[in-house]
Formats: sequence, structure tokens, C-alpha cells
Amino acid sequence: MEVIEFRPERAQYAFTFGGVAPVRKIQPGTVLRLWTEDAFCGNIRQPTDLPSSALTMPFVNPQTGPFHVAGAEPGDTLALHFVDLTPARSFGASCTIPLFGGLTGTDRTATLQDPLPERTWIYEVDTERQTVAFEAQASDLRVELPMDPMLGTVGVAPAAGEVRSSLVPDTFGGNMDTPEMRAGATCYLAVNVDGGLFSLGDGHYRQGEGEACGTAVEGAMDVTLVVELIKGGGPAWPRLETDEHLIVVGSSRPLEDAWRVSQVGMVTWLMDLYGLDKMDAYQLLSQTSQSPLANVVDVNYSAVTKVPKALLPAAAAYGGAHRQLRETAATISQ
Amino acid sequence: MEVIEFRPERAQYAFTFGGVAPVRKIQPGTVLRLWTEDAFCGNIRQPTDLPSSALTMPFVNPQTGPFHVAGAEPGDTLALHFVDLTPARSFGASCTIPLFGGLTGTDRTATLQDPLPERTWIYEVDTERQTVAFEAQASDLRVELPMDPMLGTVGVAPAAGEVRSSLVPDTFGGNMDTPEMRAGATCYLAVNVDGGLFSLGDGHYRQGEGEACGTAVEGAMDVTLVVELIKGGGPAWPRLETDEHLIVVGSSRPLEDAWRVSQVGMVTWLMDLYGLDKMDAYQLLSQTSQSPLANVVDVNYSAVTKVPKALLPAAAAYGGAHRQLRETAATISQ
Amino acid sequence: MEVIEFRPERAQYAFTFGGVAPVRKIQPGTVLRLWTEDAFCGNIRQPTDLPSSALTMPFVNPQTGPFHVAGAEPGDTLALHFVDLTPARSFGASCTIPLFGGLTGTDRTATLQDPLPERTWIYEVDTERQTVAFEAQASDLRVELPMDPMLGTVGVAPAAGEVRSSLVPDTFGGNMDTPEMRAGATCYLAVNVDGGLFSLGDGHYRQGEGEACGTAVEGAMDVTLVVELIKGGGPAWPRLETDEHLIVVGSSRPLEDAWRVSQVGMVTWLMDLYGLDKMDAYQLLSQTSQSPLANVVDVNYSAVTKVPKALLPAAAAYGGAHRQLRETAATISQ
Amino acid sequence: MEVIEFRPERAQYAFTFGGVAPVRKIQPGTVLRLWTEDAFCGNIRQPTDLPSSALTMPFVNPQTGPFHVAGAEPGDTLALHFVDLTPARSFGASCTIPLFGGLTGTDRTATLQDPLPERTWIYEVDTERQTVAFEAQASDLRVELPMDPMLGTVGVAPAAGEVRSSLVPDTFGGNMDTPEMRAGATCYLAVNVDGGLFSLGDGHYRQGEGEACGTAVEGAMDVTLVVELIKGGGPAWPRLETDEHLIVVGSSRPLEDAWRVSQVGMVTWLMDLYGLDKMDAYQLLSQTSQSPLANVVDVNYSAVTKVPKALLPAAAAYGGAHRQLRETAATISQ
Repeated sequence: MEVIEFRPERAQYAFTFGGVAPVRKIQPGTVLRLWTEDAFCGNIRQPTDLPSSALTMPFVNPQTGPFHVAGAEPGDTLALHFVDLTPARSFGASCTIPLFGGLTGTDRTATLQDPLPERTWIYEVDTERQTVAFEAQASDLRVELPMDPMLGTVGVAPAAGEVRSSLVPDTFGGNMDTPEMRAGATCYLAVNVDGGLFSLGDGHYRQGEGEACGTAVEGAMDVTLVVELIKGGGPAWPRLETDEHLIVVGSSRPLEDAWRVSQVGMVTWLMDLYGLDKMDAYQLLSQTSQSPLANVVDVNYSAVTKVPKALLPAAAAYGGAHRQLRETAATISQ
Repeated sequence: MEVIEFRPERAQYAFTFGGVAPVRKIQPGTVLRLWTEDAFCGNIRQPTDLPSSALTMPFVNPQTGPFHVAGAEPGDTLALHFVDLTPARSFGASCTIPLFGGLTGTDRTATLQDPLPERTWIYEVDTERQTVAFEAQASDLRVELPMDPMLGTVGVAPAAGEVRSSLVPDTFGGNMDTPEMRAGATCYLAVNVDGGLFSLGDGHYRQGEGEACGTAVEGAMDVTLVVELIKGGGPAWPRLETDEHLIVVGSSRPLEDAWRVSQVGMVTWLMDLYGLDKMDAYQLLSQTSQSPLANVVDVNYSAVTKVPKALLPAAAAYGGAHRQLRETAATISQ
Repeated sequence: MEVIEFRPERAQYAFTFGGVAPVRKIQPGTVLRLWTEDAFCGNIRQPTDLPSSALTMPFVNPQTGPFHVAGAEPGDTLALHFVDLTPARSFGASCTIPLFGGLTGTDRTATLQDPLPERTWIYEVDTERQTVAFEAQASDLRVELPMDPMLGTVGVAPAAGEVRSSLVPDTFGGNMDTPEMRAGATCYLAVNVDGGLFSLGDGHYRQGEGEACGTAVEGAMDVTLVVELIKGGGPAWPRLETDEHLIVVGSSRPLEDAWRVSQVGMVTWLMDLYGLDKMDAYQLLSQTSQSPLANVVDVNYSAVTKVPKALLPAAAAYGGAHRQLRETAATISQ
Repeated sequence: MEVIEFRPERAQYAFTFGGVAPVRKIQPGTVLRLWTEDAFCGNIRQPTDLPSSALTMPFVNPQTGPFHVAGAEPGDTLALHFVDLTPARSFGASCTIPLFGGLTGTDRTATLQDPLPERTWIYEVDTERQTVAFEAQASDLRVELPMDPMLGTVGVAPAAGEVRSSLVPDTFGGNMDTPEMRAGATCYLAVNVDGGLFSLGDGHYRQGEGEACGTAVEGAMDVTLVVELIKGGGPAWPRLETDEHLIVVGSSRPLEDAWRVSQVGMVTWLMDLYGLDKMDAYQLLSQTSQSPLANVVDVNYSAVTKVPKALLPAAAAYGGAHRQLRETAATISQ
């Protein structure tokens, strides 16, 4: 089992999916130990660091990668199994950014109102208690919140020769911002170009569903994952599998379309796994779906469809890839 | 503590919020033991009962009520605490209805395609195991799913003299179809007219988030609730409180607007409970919100914002109404 | 030909469609000479009259009616032919209303930003030049704009026992706010209740498509119309016919759904008029549709699908009702 | 005045905005005489040519270009003035494509219904009468429709290193599919990269507003345009100017957001041209806007905001660029 460590130099960050040469070519089965910078490129470190001065657009949400997976061809499936996500700094940061976020007019939901004020919150990490601390700025409230590390952004090079900003989620994955992308999950992505060319980043020490203000508790992350290649079977939309759930992530606007694609994606998956016809799969989904939102702030909104495995008969998606990856993961020293 | 039992005659069902005379006038503090008919008016009992022949539009989703609460005035808050929801039949039913549902063109998302076929699934109730059984129609799969009884529809008479179909969710509550409306929850609704005039119905033995095909496992329900009146404080959108969560339900289209109103409703609630300013409340929400969908099929879509109480300092919403209602509930024999 | 004049007393305004007793019962073929108050109930008359103090919610958008049309039954079609719309005051008024309008957060597109300021513009009417005068408030620009009188609101009692605010457009018509509702047009509405119970109001001396700020150049109006009853044929969505166009108005959210229903409504109409199959009608529509927006500010947004008659073979919609009504109109002294 | 003629070889088509080397470097002031292939790459020529067999995805909507404009820098404005658009074939073609179009479920508005059937319509061009002929396939109707040649797609390389499919409209222009892009119009686009790198194509001999079925009367086109460079002033969204109108095109989803950005774009333009404050510009727009839709079928929907110049005082946008380009155009032999 090959183990590759990679921590990008500042000049090596990728800010797009597609359009970037691979930083490494790896074999299927490789263990990657990566470092990901935070979405602010590490430039927001104290409450006085405000986005309009600290950030240099469009150079935000830097990605680690892309990685070329040997043998990956269009139509194949990349399986990225996250073994461990460990916060790599002693603080996380969150900001309000003018005309960005879910509860403000934006560049698209364009209004004539004045933007909300910029504000930065720094969340102290307590490694022992595994918490991050919210501190109100205009009053005295301090609340410790459990850490729940995740990656906001995981994706491959898009189809049709497109190159997309790392701020975008779509069929190729990207900036989905779902808390489901945590250690223990396997992410299945369809390969669009030779090698797949996946990248990842945007560590969140914690995030609410919807990511209302547009930023989570953003922080650099040490990421361990195992990369596997499954020939064929590339799903229309990103899928996740955990020990407990089957998950499909849809990204579009309006939000009902993001939800629709994730639901239809799950209907398809249930048909495949259980030999159901379309209407039976639709019905079974209707009574078992969990539908937590991921983000309602990005270029496309992302909605999640989850079905608990405990409600369904045993089935081995992708030939049991998740279980095998869990076993592999158990052999890796943290 | 007054206890009132009421089981409507068929002619007593209400099919609207507003526009109907109260069936009872009750005092604050009353315990109600009600029976609610299922959304199909009990007309779908076997797989061969199909909506197009078994239902008589617009007479679907019959409500039990309305109840006039003595002393309730516009601007007040009704607190409806659900003590017990017990399925009242040995089966539940779910259907696909032509041009209704989340994964089909509809009367609004109008397309030129042929409708999906009608199909009815009957779910056998196993009282001992507390399950309902899904049986595929086109293949052999049979799956037992845990029961999780809830009410799809709880609401008051609307403002501005409007009368709305019981199929509609909006600021007055109504057909929100959220699984959060289960036993143990307190629902807070703003009073728009003297007496409040609340009704409820649409029992679901189980429902997935989003209610994809448009119908849950629909079934008649025995409902026990305590009704309390809080002077003033009527919330802009329905709120729920459980031992574990603060919840706001927003209903609108597109789905992002339903989510936005539920999120702004929670920002307001957090500001009130913790003396936060708007931006701090926005930030705290952004890192703590759970955002499960309710329905993406009704006249308005409904989105839920939940915040776990465990993440927040103790606070007594509505003067501790929920805790008091829980104590009252504990004294009621089931 | 019976001619009925009616100018409501202040206490006679209707603020809902449905839920109001008819002010008159009329025979098909009747000519009505009506007076309609402006959407502000005549309470905004100078730039210092601001909505938050001058208006009493929900008593805005007063309607003249409803009128009971003898013999009208559910499923029938009311044909309302507008013979003349003449501004009844020497000024029109427009305002920005906090958290209402197309380029601001609203009660539904809920944001946390401060509302836009209230401002009132008074438009002087020049009867001779047939203009209204825009005067900038913060600078010196003065522009005379051609008058183009129209009715923002025309509707019947809704189906299913609903009662809807006069601010709402939907299948029953209502507050569609389309400039197409001008003299020379025939509006076809499906009857939902005995007598139809139509009302109208919300005169605009001029309005841009979309009604961006939420209010047009609002003004009281003298309205002359002929009312005809067509047995059967009630359209799913309001239709308009002029000498030049066939028009369908759809109202929903998101805006694409409003457009979709108006387009499907036109596909249906073209199929009926020309014996086309669905796909041919879809194709013909695709190359001939004009799609001007009506409003993007109301409870539902309204989109218009227009097809120029000049592009199509001659056809007599509704048995030539529009032509006959035009002939009748020509015999009426203004 | 330099005149450059260019007709791409098949291998020279561009299928993206960005990511393609320029075919020519030109000086500001150049006249271009170009040939554009139709959106089907010329592969649909008779009713039996159906998209699923005749098209090779993603190689549709081929663009002619890109052209590098000497001196164009990020932030500048390209002014493309269309002098002449002449259909270059004796027929146009339109199709329904499975799961693409406005009145069908799509890859985003995902449903479980069967797709609409594929069908191809060939429109014969009558050069003398300047018409194209619609012929129903399932019945006998034949209708001659006036030609109204336009370009569906005009755009520059996107910002932030993105490369976008030629099927996409966004801030960089692209596949806006508005009938306003006809001879006599000047299109203003913000430059994002050195040289601007604009391409164009997707000729339509005629198109309805909204482009309901997803395709117009598609046809190869001879295009004459003048290219001018304006330093600075790059607009947030594409603008058009004709002798009669100021126009802004917004592209997003849901459709109300496309409309909002086009409206805010026009508010900004009116503020600049007339020294209005924001609220006065909002008001003036509200009473003068025309809001015809462009497309409700592409990756983003496109909405148009038009204001008639006749309603406004004279003003010289971009230093009178449009008038100068009209004068230049008058000197060019067709």
C-alpha cells in the first residue's frame, strides 16, 4: 500500500476544477496524507481581518491537487475514502462577506439594499475537548461547539472541457459544502477526463446545514484518504456512502432542483441495488429519505438525500467498495 | 384540567383554514383527545383504490376542528403540545397522484410529458413491533419501517380574511408536512383572529423528509394534545419546541425562500433568547443549524430550521411554556 | 343592452376574491360603468404620504365588486371585455414600501439587510397630452411618460372554498398586474362558483413590465366593460384576447413556473384552435411566443405568453366572442 | 478600416468560452465578416435527422472565434456592433431534444416521467418574402413566419480562469438566446482577460421569447460586425444598445434572479446616464421597463430589461459609441 504525503506550496494551490496540471500521478489503492489550506488562504486570523481587505479575489478556496489516478477513464468511478480529518490549526475563522451568503441579497439575488456589515469571528480550537468556541462580538455570549471536521470541497475535472471555479458545486462535485463529507465516508465521483484529476480542500471544523452566512468554521486540515478506482459506473451526481447511510448530493438552482436531482439520483441507486422498478423506488424513497441541506449560498445550492442503511436489506454498492475501504483504513496508522 | 374528546362526523370535517365555524370553544389549558381522518378521507384501503377514482377533489386532507380558544386575540400565541399520537387503523396508505409530487411535472411546474402512473401502496401496521411494512408492487421486496407518527397539518385561521385550502402551508401553519410535528413537540402559532381557530389532521405513520411522491404513509390518528394560550408574542412563522430542539418552519416557493424565512425566523428567536445582535445570531445559526426539508410537493414548500438546545445555554422560550406543558402532559393518562 | 353604473361606497370595497357578497347581480351582456379606487385606497396624494403611515394593512388594493353573473356555473367562462379605461384623478402615485418589491428582500425572500427607504412619487396627469410626469426626488430630472391605462387586478371567486387577498394572482386571476389588461382586451376567466363573482380594480395609469418597485402609477379609474358568459370552456389559467394577440397569464413561484403554466396554457389553446398535436403546438409556440413579464413582486409572480394573431391563420376563439364584444363595444357611447 | 473575413474550418470551431487560442488578433475598429455554423454543427438537415443520433455531445453550439482584440484589458468594454446578419442556408432546423427544453423535466428539473418524443422540423427559407415556413408534422398546418435573424451566442472569455461550455449564458455573455441580438444592435461586454477573446455563433433565423422547446429556427449565418474597444467601464452584465432601446441581459436561476440582475443592471445604467439616485432610478425603471424573456431552457435562464430611449432624455452611453458605430456601419458595403 503506497502512502504519499503532499503539502502544497502556496504557488501550488489549485483554484479551479479542470485547467490545472496534476501535482501527482497515483495508483489506485494509494493512501494520501494531505494538507489543505483554509478557504481564506490562511489570511483571516483575527477579528480585525475582514474579507474585503484580507482576501484577493478570485483566489479563495484553494484546493490541494489535482491528482491523476492511473487508469481512470471517462465513465469510471473514483472512490475517495476519508480516513481521518484533523484540524491543523489552533483556530478556525468565519466571516460575513458583503453580498455573499444565504440571508442577504447577492450578485444573483440582486437587490438595491445596503450590504450587511463585514464581521469576522475567530473560533478557538480546544483539542482536548474537541470543541470550537463561538464568541459573540456585540455581547458576551460564549458557546463551545463540538468539532465535526469535514471537507467543503471535493471534486474532479468537469466534462466537456469546462474549467470551474473551486467555489462551484455541480455534477463534478466541487464546493458542495455538506457536513456528510467527514471521516468514515466514501465519496463516489464520475470520471470525466483521463486520470480523473481530483482535488480537495475547504476544511470546516464545523458547519451548520445550509451554511447560512456563507462561511463555516474554516480551517486548515490534515487529511488522510484512500483512493480507489472502480471501472465504469460513474454516477450522474456525487454519491457518498458511510456505515450508516447511502447519500446523493445534488447541486443546482433553485434549491428544489438541487433536491430533485439528489432524489432522482437516489431513486436510480435504489433501483440498481434492489431491483425495484421506478415507481416502487420512488415510493420507498418517499418514506425513508432524510433531506438535510448542504449549502444555500454557493453558485449552485447543494441538497442531500440520505437513506439509512438500517431501513434497507443489506446490499453491496459498488461491489462492496465502502466496506473494503473501511477495512483498508483500519490498517492505516493515524 | 378539562378534557374534551371529539371525533368528527364525516360532515364535520374542515377542508379549509378559516371560513369554518368552530366545532368547540375551549379554555386555555384544555386537554383534547381527538380523532383525525387520513388525508384520503379513508377512501384508499387497498392497492386497487387509486386516487383518480377514490378521491373527490377538493375534498381531501380533512381537518379536525377548528377549535376556538377563549381569550385568544390577534398577536397572541397558541401553544399546542402533542402528548400522544397513536395510529388508529391497522394500515396506512400512500399513492402516486397524477401530476402531483416532487419528481414529476405538476400543475405549476407545468410540462408536456405524460404523467407518472397512479399506484397505491398499503402499509400493514404491526403494533407490537411498531412498524409499517413497505411492499414493492412490481417485485418482491418487503421492508419493515419503524413507525414515527406525526401530523402533516396543524394550523390556525389565516390573517386578512383569507380562507386557505387544507393542502396549503403558510404563515398560519397548515399543511407543513414536517416529521417534527410528533408527540413531545410544542407548536407555537400566531393568532390572527379571535379564538385562533386551530384545526389539525393529516396523520402520517411515517414520512420521509421532502415527502417526495406527495403522500406519506397516511393514516387515521388518535391525537392527545394540551392547548395553551400565551398573550402576545405571536411568531411570524410556526415554531416548534421539543426537549432537544428549537425549530422554525418556513413555507414558500422557491424552496430557498422557504429556507430563508425559517432561517430568519431562527435568527430572530436567537436574538430574543440570548440578547444577541443580528450579526452574531446569524453567525451562531450558521454553525449550528440543522436544515431538514419537510415537503417539496405542496402549494408552498416547507423547510425546517432546527437548533439543538444542547449547543446553547439554557433558556426558557415563551416563559418556559414547553417545560410546563411537558409536566402537564406527564399527568395525563394515555 | 342593460347598462349598470356602480361606484362603491368606501364600506363596499372588497379586499378579497371570494368571501364577499355580490354588490349586484347582472345578466350576461350587461354593460358596466364602474369606478375603481386606487390600490392605496386613495390615501397617498402627495410625496409626504408614506405607505407605513398612510396605509392600513391589510386594507389595500380595494376591489369593485363582486358581480354575480346570472347563469354562470363552475366550468363556464366569463368574458370581460374592457371598452374604456379613463383615469379618474389628476394624479397617480407610486411608492416604495419597506420589504416589498422586486429589488429588495421581502417577507419571503427574507434577508437580514435594512429595508430600502420609503419614498412616494406623485405623477401629474396631463389629460391633453395623455401623459403622466415622473419627477425625481433627489435630483432635477422630469420626464413625461405616455399614459397606458390598465387594471392590475381582475378576478373571480377561487375554487375549493378558498378566499384570497386581492394582492394575490393565481388561477382565478386576481392581482396579475399585466399591462395587457387594457381597453380593447377581452379577459376570459374560468367560473369556480355559481355566479362567478368577479371583481376588479387596481387601476394603473402606466406600469413597467415586472412592476419592479412593487407599485405602478396607481390611480382611480373609470372603467367601462361588457360582461359575457360562455357556457363551458373555462380555461385553467386566465386568457386575454385582443385584436392582435392571444394571451395566457400564469402566476406562480418561482418565476419559471409562472412562465411554464402560461406556455402550457398557450400550447393547449393552439392545439384547440388549429387541431395541432402537442409537439407541433410546442414547436409553433417556441418560434412565435412573446414573453413579457407582468409582475415579479406579488404573492405569486405573473408571466405572460402572447402570440401575434398575424402569424397564425384566422381562428375564432370562444366562438368569436372577442370580435362580437368589440362590435358591441363600438355601439356604446363613451 | 480593416476588414477581415473568416470562415472556420470544422476543426476550428470553439465549443467553450475561454480555454481556446484566438483564431485572429484584430485591432479595435476592425470590420469582421464571419460565417457561423448552426447549433447542430450542420448535422440536422431533414425531419428524419433526430438529435440523439445526429448530434455528438458535447460538440454542439460551435462558435466562430475567439478573436483577440489588441489592447483589451480586464475591466475594459468590448463593443460589438452587428451590421448585418444574413441566413447562409436555404433552411433552418428546430428539434425537441429528450430532457432538454422549458416544458419538460430536464437534467436539473429532474423528474421520473418519460421524456417527450424527439422531433425535427425543417423550416424552408423564402429569401424573397423573408420568411421561414413552419410545417406541422402530425397535421396539415403550414405557416409562414417572418425571418428575424439573430445570434443566440455572443461572449468573451470568463473571469477567474473559468472555461464555460458554449451552451451557458452568464456574466461573460454566452448563450443568452435573446432576439435582441440582431443587426443594428451594439453589444457591450466586460473584458476579463487580455484581448477579451470574444466568440459568436448560434444563428437563429427566428426565435420566440423564452425559446420554449430549447431550439430556435437554427441556421448558419453570414455575420458582419464592427469591433470597438472602450477603455474601462466594463458592465457587470451584458448590455445592448439599439437606436430605440437600452438593454441589459441577466442570466441565472431561478428566473427571478435572472430578471433581478438585469433590472439592477439597468438601475445602475440609469443612475450613470442621468445622475439619478438609486431610489429615483428604481422608480423610473419600474414605470418604463420592458421585460421580455430570452431563454428559459439553458444552463442559466436569461431575462432582458429594455427601456425605450424615446421615454428618456437624450444621453450618450459609452461616449456615444453606438451612434458612431452606426455611422461606421453605414459606410460598409453589404
